[in-house]
Amino acid sequence: MTPPPSVLARAAIVAVGSELLETTKVDTNSLFITDRLNGVGIDVVSKHVAGDDRALLTHVLRSALAGADLLVVCGGLGPTDDDLTRDAVADVLERPLAEDPALVEHLQRRYASRGLSVPMPRNNLRQAQVPAGAAVLDNPNGSAPGLWIDHGAQAVVLLPGPPRELKPMMTALAETRLRARASGVAIVRRMLRISGRFESHVDQALHPLYEEWASASPPIAATILATLGQIELHLSVRHSSPGDAAAMLERATAQAVGVIGEDVFSTDGRRLEEVVGDALAARGLWLAAAESCTGGLVTSRLTDVPGSSRYVGASIVAYANEAKVSLLGVPEALLEAHGAVSEPVARAMAEGIRARAGADLGLGITGIAGPAGGTPEKPVGTVAVALASPDGSVARTFRFFGDRELIKFQASQAALDMVRRHLSA
Amino acid sequence: MTPPPSVLARAAIVAVGSELLETTKVDTNSLFITDRLNGVGIDVVSKHVAGDDRALLTHVLRSALAGADLLVVCGGLGPTDDDLTRDAVADVLERPLAEDPALVEHLQRRYASRGLSVPMPRNNLRQAQVPAGAAVLDNPNGSAPGLWIDHGAQAVVLLPGPPRELKPMMTALAETRLRARASGVAIVRRMLRISGRFESHVDQALHPLYEEWASASPPIAATILATLGQIELHLSVRHSSPGDAAAMLERATAQAVGVIGEDVFSTDGRRLEEVVGDALAARGLWLAAAESCTGGLVTSRLTDVPGSSRYVGASIVAYANEAKVSLLGVPEALLEAHGAVSEPVARAMAEGIRARAGADLGLGITGIAGPAGGTPEKPVGTVAVALASPDGSVARTFRFFGDRELIKFQASQAALDMVRRHLSA
Repeated sequence: MTPPPSVLARAAIVAVGSELLETTKVDTNSLFITDRLNGVGIDVVSKHVAGDDRALLTHVLRSALAGADLLVVCGGLGPTDDDLTRDAVADVLERPLAEDPALVEHLQRRYASRGLSVPMPRNNLRQAQVPAGAAVLDNPNGSAPGLWIDHGAQAVVLLPGPPRELKPMMTALAETRLRARASGVAIVRRMLRISGRFESHVDQALHPLYEEWASASPPIAATILATLGQIELHLSVRHSSPGDAAAMLERATAQAVGVIGEDVFSTDGRRLEEVVGDALAARGLWLAAAESCTGGLVTSRLTDVPGSSRYVGASIVAYANEAKVSLLGVPEALLEAHGAVSEPVARAMAEGIRARAGADLGLGITGIAGPAGGTPEKPVGTVAVALASPDGSVARTFRFFGDRELIKFQASQAALDMVRRHLSA
Repeated sequence: MTPPPSVLARAAIVAVGSELLETTKVDTNSLFITDRLNGVGIDVVSKHVAGDDRALLTHVLRSALAGADLLVVCGGLGPTDDDLTRDAVADVLERPLAEDPALVEHLQRRYASRGLSVPMPRNNLRQAQVPAGAAVLDNPNGSAPGLWIDHGAQAVVLLPGPPRELKPMMTALAETRLRARASGVAIVRRMLRISGRFESHVDQALHPLYEEWASASPPIAATILATLGQIELHLSVRHSSPGDAAAMLERATAQAVGVIGEDVFSTDGRRLEEVVGDALAARGLWLAAAESCTGGLVTSRLTDVPGSSRYVGASIVAYANEAKVSLLGVPEALLEAHGAVSEPVARAMAEGIRARAGADLGLGITGIAGPAGGTPEKPVGTVAVALASPDGSVARTFRFFGDRELIKFQASQAALDMVRRHLSA
C-alpha cells in the first residue's frame, strides 16, 4: 500500500561541504534531522555528502530527490562563492533564482545591528536569492535563512549547516510543515544487546520470529548488527500510537529474549558496564578487578558509569609477573607451572584482588593482547578470565581475534559478561 | 594492442546498512578509505549511505557510479538476508551472480577451524556469490571476501563493513590495483598534535605562516581542528613526487614547531600515549599510576601501545578513600585535611604507587568526574594531577568541562602530558 502522493514518507538527506569529504570530519547533522523526521513518521532512505562543486552537487541532489518524497539539504547556504546549495537546487528543480526583497531588508537590518563600520559585503546578498516559489524559514541564530520548496508531490528543505542554526529550525519544521504533511505514523525503536553468540546464530535463532514480526500489523522491522564484543538487534515499528508501538516492541522484545535467553544482556539501551553496575548496586556488592592484558580497561569502563563509586572501590593493574606476585599474592610456583596466561593464575589474581580490595567479587584477567608474546599453544588473543566470589571461583579461556585494542576490548567484555551471568544466576 | 587502462581520479563511497540511517550511528569507514584513496591521488567527490533495501540501494549505487570513475562500497557483504550489496551491485552492473567454488571451500575451512558443534549455517554460502568477472580480495580477518570489478573505464570495489576487515584490505588495495590505476598526484598529509593551548591561540600564532604556505608551489593547505584534549594542525599538499611533498611538509612542520614550541607533542601521527611510551622506553624508565577519577583509563591508554610491558609494570585504581589509604599508603590525616581531590593527596598517591610498584615515575590522579560530587570550591571537572620522580613531586590542578567520560579523558590526557613534559625537560 503506497501512501497518497501528498504524504511525505521517505526522506533523503544531503550534507554539503568539501570538508566532509576529507579524512577527519563526518556529517552528524543527519542524526538530528533523522530523529525529528522519524518522530513525525518520515523514514530516511538515503544520506549523501557532496562537496562545493556545482555540477557534482547538482548530480547528487538530483539522484537523492529521485529516490525520496522529501529532500533535506544542509549546508552550503552561506554568503561565499563556495556556498552553492541555492544554485544547485535551482538547477535541479529548474526554477530561477530571484532576490527576495524581504530577505534583503532582513540581511541589511541584521548586518547594521552589528555596528560594523564597513558596508555589508555584496556577497551577503547571495543569501537573499531564493528559487521561485520557495517559502523562507526564519533563522533566529544566523544570517542564512532556511527554505521550503513544494515541488509537485515532493518537498525540498534547505537548512544551514551550523548545528545551532539547524537544530531549532529543524525542530520547528517537524512540528509545523512536516507534521502537517507526514503520515503521523512515527517510527518507534528498541535495541537488544546480546553476548556470547555469533551473528549468524542469532539470525538463525530469530528466523521464526522475523516472519511473525514482518506480518504483524503494522510490521516490526528487525536488523541484526554485529559490533565488537556484542550483537545488536534493532527493532522498529511505524505506528500512529506511540503507546501501542511501545507495547508491540515490548512483546517482540520478550519473544526475542524467550528465544535467545540470558545471552540478551540489555533490552533498554544500557551498555554492559551499566547492566553490571546496576546489578552490583541492586545487590549491594563490591567488585574489584586484577587486570593484566586489559591494562585497566575493565575498571575504566565500570567507572564510566555515574554512581560507580557505590560498587567499585579499587582495582590493580598487574601487568608484569612481579606485580602479580607482589601486589596480588599470586604464588610464583603457579606462574612457573602454568604460565601467566592460564586459568589457575587468573583464579589466583581474582582471589588476590578480592581479598586485598575487600570486595565481594574479584575478577582476574590475564592474556596475550599482542602483537608479540604469542606461542603455538597460546596464540595472541588467548585470554583467561576468572571470577572469585564467596562460593569459590570460576574460570574460562577465550580466544579473540583482531589487533591489540580489539583484543583488549573483547577481553573486557568477556570479563564483564562473566560478572553479569554470575549475578543473574 | 589494448588501450592503456583509464586513470581513476574521482571516487564515490557508498556505506551500506540500515543502522547507518538511524539516529545513533554514522559511517566512519569512509574516512579511512578516503585517506588511502587520497594517498594514491584519487579524490573523493561524493559519499552516500543506503539501507538494506535492494531497490533503494541499487538506486544509490547507480547514481554514485554515474558521478565517479571508482565506486567503493563498504558493508552489506555478510551472510544474512539483509546483506544485499552483492545483489544490488550485480543489478547495477547487469552481471549475473555465481557461486565461486574456491570461496565455498575457503568459507567451509574457516568455519571448521572454529571447532563449533553446529554445522555451518546455509546462509554463509551467500558470501561465496560473486558477480561475473569479479576478482576476489582476500580477507584475513573475516569471512566476507572483498571484490574488485572492472567495468569499462570504471572500477567497483566491495569491502566488508567491519573496520578490522576493511582496513587491511583497503590498505593492500591502495598499494596494488589502485596505485596502478591512479594519477600518482597524491594528496600528502601531515598532522601535528598540540596540547595546552586553545584553538584560537594556535590559529593566531600560525597566521604569518598561512600566507607563506598558501603561496608555495604547489600550495600547502592548513586546517586547525580542536578535538578533545588536543588541537590538531592538518597540513596537506598535492604533489606528483611523494618525496618532494614530504620535504615541503617537513619544512612546514619545522616552521610550526618553531612558532608553537614544546606544546607540539606529535608531528608523526603518534598519539600522546605512544609519545610518552617511546620516551619512557628510550630512557629505560618504568611508570606506574595511582588513578582515582580516571578509573584505570591512563593505564589502559598506556597499555594500548604494543610493547608497553617495557615500561608499565603495575598500577592501582584507588577509587574509594579507603583504597587510597590501604593500597597506596595515603595518610588519612591528609585526606581529612585537604580532601581527596587535592594536590597533597595527588602527590601522596603518586609517591605511594611509585614505591609500591617499584617504578621510576609515579602518577597520582584524583578529581571529580561527576555528575555528582561537585562543590562550590571544587566543582565537577576539578582534577589534581601529580608526578613523583626521584627528584620529588610536582602537582597541578585542572578544571575540565563536559560529561563524565569527557572529563575522564581530559584528565588522562593532562596526566600523560605531565609525564611527557617531565621527560622532555
